[in-house]
Amino acid sequence: MRALVTGGAGFIGSHLVDRLLHEGHDVVAYDSFATGQDRFLERAVPHPRFTLVRGDLLDRAALGSAAAGADIVFHLAASADVRFGTACPDRDVSQNTVGTFNVLEAMRAAGVTRIVFSSTGSVYGEPAVFPTPEDAPFPLQTSLYGAAKLAGEALIQAYCEGFGFQGYIFRFVSILGERYSHGHVFDFYKQLRVHPQELRVLGDGHQRKSYLYVHDCIDASLCALERAHGRVNIFNLGTHDFCEVNRSIAWIVEELGVTPAVSYSGGVRGWIGDSPFILLDCRRIRTLGWAPRVSIRDGIVRTLRYLQQNPWLLDARP
Amino acid sequence: MRALVTGGAGFIGSHLVDRLLHEGHDVVAYDSFATGQDRFLERAVPHPRFTLVRGDLLDRAALGSAAAGADIVFHLAASADVRFGTACPDRDVSQNTVGTFNVLEAMRAAGVTRIVFSSTGSVYGEPAVFPTPEDAPFPLQTSLYGAAKLAGEALIQAYCEGFGFQGYIFRFVSILGERYSHGHVFDFYKQLRVHPQELRVLGDGHQRKSYLYVHDCIDASLCALERAHGRVNIFNLGTHDFCEVNRSIAWIVEELGVTPAVSYSGGVRGWIGDSPFILLDCRRIRTLGWAPRVSIRDGIVRTLRYLQQNPWLLDARP
Repeated sequence: MRALVTGGAGFIGSHLVDRLLHEGHDVVAYDSFATGQDRFLERAVPHPRFTLVRGDLLDRAALGSAAAGADIVFHLAASADVRFGTACPDRDVSQNTVGTFNVLEAMRAAGVTRIVFSSTGSVYGEPAVFPTPEDAPFPLQTSLYGAAKLAGEALIQAYCEGFGFQGYIFRFVSILGERYSHGHVFDFYKQLRVHPQELRVLGDGHQRKSYLYVHDCIDASLCALERAHGRVNIFNLGTHDFCEVNRSIAWIVEELGVTPAVSYSGGVRGWIGDSPFILLDCRRIRTLGWAPRVSIRDGIVRTLRYLQQNPWLLDARP
Repeated sequence: MRALVTGGAGFIGSHLVDRLLHEGHDVVAYDSFATGQDRFLERAVPHPRFTLVRGDLLDRAALGSAAAGADIVFHLAASADVRFGTACPDRDVSQNTVGTFNVLEAMRAAGVTRIVFSSTGSVYGEPAVFPTPEDAPFPLQTSLYGAAKLAGEALIQAYCEGFGFQGYIFRFVSILGERYSHGHVFDFYKQLRVHPQELRVLGDGHQRKSYLYVHDCIDASLCALERAHGRVNIFNLGTHDFCEVNRSIAWIVEELGVTPAVSYSGGVRGWIGDSPFILLDCRRIRTLGWAPRVSIRDGIVRTLRYLQQNPWLLDARP
């Protein structure tokens, strides 16, 4: 098949590109390189079945050209850092909502009707039910990021009903692994590399979060594509486990062999819109036969090793 | 207080303007007049405490000026016809999602933090639970209109969490009454006025819908504003009743004294994204002491009498 991967130069997108090429598919990556990295595509670029398009989600004409002839669109391009919502609401809305709408319109113009969307467990806000299932009570949004992603989900669902699209919506926990370039492991490693004696933590350290290793995430997505055949297919993607930020810190400092003094900004939330507890009920995807292979701890360790081997990435991101 | 009413020249908005002026408030109406009508503001315009601003929701600067000094924003401006989604997805997304985002940003710039939003029961898609409560299982969107309104709700919720806003989100059933200018009573009356012998109906006539009389709707909204004090206050607004389209037709032809041959386009849905059954659980708003005063039948009859007395409106709308 021929796949368009928006955000194809990003953390998850570039792994997906490699995987699809490896499986014999034709791949077009579409990326603005706002956060994507040329180096993530070093394997893909020489490949004869790979095409790279530099473009923004707000450029509907360029998106339309990129989508022409595709059998499926993996729409991963996004403003992906939940913490920046209140600093820059425009970015979440334009990239994650209007951008998704533009992808849908480009697909419609090009006659492409199958879409995979990287949504987020943040759409559950601060849920009352743990682990949180896909059909949890109608949630309240607590972050611009979650709100803008939920809007993207909603538009995709409406296109499935109105225009005969088939949609796969994956609500991710935080994803870890090689090429990971934002989030707490990144921030902690960046701090400790310069100042191994001190670590500043957002919140009180007791936030409980779930993580999933990037190749497990891609396995799950492709498994669902192969085995789920509804018009709208929604899956939580995560492990059955979670860890406290403090536990994650213990693993990180052990792996790095440092003993920093840890200070906390305080509060049960690390930032405005932070969800103090994320644990998704992933039975729906597990019923299809998928299970994660890498534990949260191993995911963190692999992430650290990647960052140690790729110090350029620490300077590439603000 | 000083209130900004977006969509203040529209069906519901203009009644709200009259009501707020009557209660002694200062009112700024903001309307693009895409569907608003000057005649709806005939009572308001001469009023010394009334200001009319002609502007579009996509003009954030004009919105910002209109919001300056307001204590509250009633955000009613919208592309309000659920049936047009697949014909014009841009309109739903730009007016109902980006437009709502622009209102929020204009409020933030002007330091206004209290917002009332006219959402819709369409955000429940085709629910499994009837009557459908506010915390129904996380729904799937079936219309562009519902999706774009849900996106608006989500952004408001995120602004409540992120920027200390207080939000009132009302999920309306179809609203009827004086100044009503789109929907099935409008369409049926418009047909029967020209051809009293025939009536063409979208769907099979068995769609079950709820309706609420416009003054009951405004009573409920103001009741919630006075008595609910959460950060995010979400209320279904409807009657405890519903009626089949065929029942509604019987009332209409009886009132008009006509006996048309009725033909049906067929299918359980009247159009793509139509919800065959809408019945909202309104116990949450009723707990505050509000109850509707006008039945569905009386709402339909009052609507017909208004349309008979205001034939100009039938020609003013496409």
